[in-house]
Amino acid sequence: VSAVVDLNADLAEGFGRWSLGDDMALLELVTSANVACGFHAGDPAGIRAVCERAAERGVRVGAHPGYRDLAGFGRREMHVPRAELRDDLIYQLGAVRAMARAAGTDVSYVKVHGALNNRAVWDAEQAAAIVDAVTGFDADLPLVVMGAGQLLDAAQRADLEVVIEAYADRAYAADGTLVPRSRDGAVLTDPDRVVEQVLSIVTDGSVRAIEGTLVPLRARSVCLHGDTPGAVTLASRVRAALDATVAVRAFA
Amino acid sequence: VSAVVDLNADLAEGFGRWSLGDDMALLELVTSANVACGFHAGDPAGIRAVCERAAERGVRVGAHPGYRDLAGFGRREMHVPRAELRDDLIYQLGAVRAMARAAGTDVSYVKVHGALNNRAVWDAEQAAAIVDAVTGFDADLPLVVMGAGQLLDAAQRADLEVVIEAYADRAYAADGTLVPRSRDGAVLTDPDRVVEQVLSIVTDGSVRAIEGTLVPLRARSVCLHGDTPGAVTLASRVRAALDATVAVRAFA
Amino acid sequence: VSAVVDLNADLAEGFGRWSLGDDMALLELVTSANVACGFHAGDPAGIRAVCERAAERGVRVGAHPGYRDLAGFGRREMHVPRAELRDDLIYQLGAVRAMARAAGTDVSYVKVHGALNNRAVWDAEQAAAIVDAVTGFDADLPLVVMGAGQLLDAAQRADLEVVIEAYADRAYAADGTLVPRSRDGAVLTDPDRVVEQVLSIVTDGSVRAIEGTLVPLRARSVCLHGDTPGAVTLASRVRAALDATVAVRAFA
Amino acid sequence: VSAVVDLNADLAEGFGRWSLGDDMALLELVTSANVACGFHAGDPAGIRAVCERAAERGVRVGAHPGYRDLAGFGRREMHVPRAELRDDLIYQLGAVRAMARAAGTDVSYVKVHGALNNRAVWDAEQAAAIVDAVTGFDADLPLVVMGAGQLLDAAQRADLEVVIEAYADRAYAADGTLVPRSRDGAVLTDPDRVVEQVLSIVTDGSVRAIEGTLVPLRARSVCLHGDTPGAVTLASRVRAALDATVAVRAFA
Repeated sequence: VSAVVDLNADLAEGFGRWSLGDDMALLELVTSANVACGFHAGDPAGIRAVCERAAERGVRVGAHPGYRDLAGFGRREMHVPRAELRDDLIYQLGAVRAMARAAGTDVSYVKVHGALNNRAVWDAEQAAAIVDAVTGFDADLPLVVMGAGQLLDAAQRADLEVVIEAYADRAYAADGTLVPRSRDGAVLTDPDRVVEQVLSIVTDGSVRAIEGTLVPLRARSVCLHGDTPGAVTLASRVRAALDATVAVRAFA
Repeated sequence: VSAVVDLNADLAEGFGRWSLGDDMALLELVTSANVACGFHAGDPAGIRAVCERAAERGVRVGAHPGYRDLAGFGRREMHVPRAELRDDLIYQLGAVRAMARAAGTDVSYVKVHGALNNRAVWDAEQAAAIVDAVTGFDADLPLVVMGAGQLLDAAQRADLEVVIEAYADRAYAADGTLVPRSRDGAVLTDPDRVVEQVLSIVTDGSVRAIEGTLVPLRARSVCLHGDTPGAVTLASRVRAALDATVAVRAFA
Repeated sequence: VSAVVDLNADLAEGFGRWSLGDDMALLELVTSANVACGFHAGDPAGIRAVCERAAERGVRVGAHPGYRDLAGFGRREMHVPRAELRDDLIYQLGAVRAMARAAGTDVSYVKVHGALNNRAVWDAEQAAAIVDAVTGFDADLPLVVMGAGQLLDAAQRADLEVVIEAYADRAYAADGTLVPRSRDGAVLTDPDRVVEQVLSIVTDGSVRAIEGTLVPLRARSVCLHGDTPGAVTLASRVRAALDATVAVRAFA
Repeated sequence: VSAVVDLNADLAEGFGRWSLGDDMALLELVTSANVACGFHAGDPAGIRAVCERAAERGVRVGAHPGYRDLAGFGRREMHVPRAELRDDLIYQLGAVRAMARAAGTDVSYVKVHGALNNRAVWDAEQAAAIVDAVTGFDADLPLVVMGAGQLLDAAQRADLEVVIEAYADRAYAADGTLVPRSRDGAVLTDPDRVVEQVLSIVTDGSVRAIEGTLVPLRARSVCLHGDTPGAVTLASRVRAALDATVAVRAFA
């Protein structure tokens, strides 16, 4: 259905002594790099290193802010009031923009991380805080969102450019939401299944839900995970399959 | 010796539930607000609140970054390698610039905080990191520095605009450096002595050292502390004494 | 209804440069000190200082652990899985016990802080984690809880000693729960009203709900807040009113 | 020279989502596990997991506290006043003891981490703080130290049991100190050289310094690093070589 698709992954998710995933290998494969902003992961030197390499490879840099929760990697839902969450996000966006510019590139889009992204599907207050943050920081930045939910609605109401993404390796439920990680089968590990899902999304605009039904899902970007074993190999297969089918190109 | 002087104070030095000093009262008295950037103090919502009020009052906002050390309030010297320190600083500068712009103003200068500022007097590596950070972030920003030392030298070599500041309530040694806080008499608490020191600096370009000698000190800005008991009263007296003597105006 | 009551307050809730409330004044008035454990507030030196003074004044020390959330002061609900929350709590209990012993006293009871305490009223998983922690750390420690809810039930099922507490300055709803801070009238500020509520609890075993009805509330301990303006004055009045009515004595 | 030697490694050095080294594999090879205490690395759940496995394998658990510096992994020197450092250490010791006991074992010794351990060789104030902490927490715990320096001296003056350790894979200078990591050749990567150094220490009581001279070094414990590539393979070789030569047994 689409002649062009973007491929994104979460990068710079180490912190100090700790690294996570093979950022440099993934930067050879993706067209957009979601760069952690320091609150759930990502230290300034690591953010710079990813931005520098992204600049060299022509990969677009997106800011990927999350909850202030290093110990939980931003994967634990937190109740943060709207104004406070907005300011936490603007702070992170500004910090990563400074690092990106120092590295010779810039922040070209925003995608929020982890539990915040999941919660913003149903929590109108946190969805509003995210939209407030992008609007207050730089209203020209596209916001990457899931195919349905409060965040998508709020972003559209605020006239932000939205980019709907699909997950390569996450199972979908019949209502188009992600199957929670706590459920069996939530993460696809069979490379053939992952490639099949990606091609179904890109060429048919739909995804096979865990219940077996076909769910419409029109995505301009496909998200790969970089922190799983075999992530680079899987990413290579997805990229090759996409290259054989559509043009793979950043949206921003 | 100077018809104009700036009055600065460290603000937004609370964190979450904790506040420090009376930011709003001080914003009625100073012309430049050194805004904490989140690593030694300062959370995004608190940074915004100070920036918004500064914008309303016409007070200039400076970024006031420090070591990543909330528990030590940035007052404990740390050995941080040059590139890592540079990136920690750029991150903070970008974060506070985003908050300032969201609040309707901007970062107009840089002044580093606490132990980092003190160490940069003698540590050429950390001084270089600070200069790298300002240069890499926005080379047009003036850097507020003490009247002598490695940081001043490095900033001048890099053609940064430097603004020399003097401390209203800190005792000076005969060599023009600050008497360390650990020594008796390091902090002036008698308001008359503080006013006297400020006027001596502004009108004579010199300060009476703790040893009794007169030390030349030509400062374009005077620093007040906001976190001591009686800080606001003292600041009012200093401001009144300056208003009666020179024009009090931001340098940036 | 009771000849004896305990008076507790949350102490050691500063962090590094930041202080909160007048710990030393409150230690003259309370019989039990809930000592912050470092995750939502409280640094080791501050914890020691409160424990040392509590030891001198014969005030019992309780551990007062919370979510790992300095920026939110433990007042933001977090979704933390049961085993992880249990371990976060045991870590804090052990840390504060070590500080208490180094200060010549010991941890004599446990009371969880803020949003964790509130959430454990209805969240059975987090309530279970708290009980797991006390059981796994030292099953002889009493647990201070609110008058109803999942935490009370879970603690009783595990045969922990429970101590029900009432809040001196928080309004109650007709169902015996606290009126959320976000609602008008949630915090009582009129000292006469506070004293009246405390005496009603202690002598009648009931509290006047915000709706006007009388709610039964049999509490062995009354909680004062130390971080509000006028906290010490209010605490003095409550202590005097109690001294005139019952014996004020630690439960542990 | 010694019929018995202990083999120790730093474990539990992950944090939240981030892991470091293969703790479970190393627990098959060492006799003592230095467990990170949460300030430079180590979260409660990770600490428990290592302690549980150590208990199963009969490996002794030591507390391995460091500076409060997650971003720097405790490898950046910090100036922390003596009383504050002491309390930071007692807090960590108590926290890990609680985790160890909940896991069915206990803390049997103390070894400080990283830059703190290095600095305590020459900084008498920080050395004293470490001794204060062990004395104030549990004076029966042995302290693992390097073969010379202020910490060794202070511990002996305080009648603490000291256990001198040698590093398997770090080059020594002619004065018996470690070659700083910043110098070429500071870390031995050739397994044959590592085994040779370990056997020289254990059987001859000396080590070949980087300058070529033989330096006396009588160590009761040998330290392996677990966070380098090939760490487990190297540890296996060292263990096998030691098993063929002496009895490998915990000192505590």
